[in-house]
Amino acid sequence: MDCIFCKIVAGQIPSDVLYTDDKVVAFRDISPMAPVHLLIIPQHHIASLTDLTEAQMSLVGHMAYVANQLAKQQGISEKGYRVVINCGRQGGQVVQHLHMHLLGGRELSGMLG
Amino acid sequence: MDCIFCKIVAGQIPSDVLYTDDKVVAFRDISPMAPVHLLIIPQHHIASLTDLTEAQMSLVGHMAYVANQLAKQQGISEKGYRVVINCGRQGGQVVQHLHMHLLGGRELSGMLG
Repeated sequence: MDCIFCKIVAGQIPSDVLYTDDKVVAFRDISPMAPVHLLIIPQHHIASLTDLTEAQMSLVGHMAYVANQLAKQQGISEKGYRVVINCGRQGGQVVQHLHMHLLGGRELSGMLG
Repeated sequence: MDCIFCKIVAGQIPSDVLYTDDKVVAFRDISPMAPVHLLIIPQHHIASLTDLTEAQMSLVGHMAYVANQLAKQQGISEKGYRVVINCGRQGGQVVQHLHMHLLGGRELSGMLG
C-alpha cells in the first residue's frame, strides 16, 4: 500500500485532520493555494473520479456535504468557496486517490484551469 | 424568473445542450476556458452549493455521474478532466443557479484559483 492518502487515513503519516466519519477524512492540503485549502477523501481507496460507478456516486454527494460543513466551520461559507475534483493527468490529479479540494478565504481567480 | 440557467432549462434561451434527464441539463459554456467546457445544472432552481440540504446532496453525486459520462462522450475521460463548483462571490460563482463545470481537452493548470 504505497498510497500516501491511504497512509493518512491509517494514521501512518501525520496530517492536520479536521473531520472524519465512516466514509471520509478531511485534512489541510500541505501545499495550500488559498488561506483555506482542505482535501476531502474517501477512507476506502478509490483511484479517481472516473473509477466511480453510478452506485458509488453518492460518495461524491457526501464529500460535497462535508465540504459545505467544513466551509461553515472555517468561516468561508457566506463569502464563498470552490470545490474541485481533478481527474487524471490532464486534469492535474497528483495523488491517485480520489480527493475533493475545498478552497476559500480570499477572492479566488475566475480561471478554472 | 430572471435566472438565465432556468431559461436555458425551459428552452427560452438557445444553448448547445449535450445531455438532459429528469434531474439535470448539460450544455457548453458560452465562454469556454478549455477545448471542452461544459456546465451541468439541476433542472430545478437551486441557487448554490451552500443551499443544498444533506438530503439533496445526491444531486451532486448525479451531476458527477453525468460529468463522467460526458467526459467519455467528449473523449477526455482517459487523458483527464476537472470538475469545479464555485459557490458564492469569493468562490467565483457568476450565475446564481448551481452548476458544475467540466473542463478538459488540454493540460489544465495546477492552479485551482
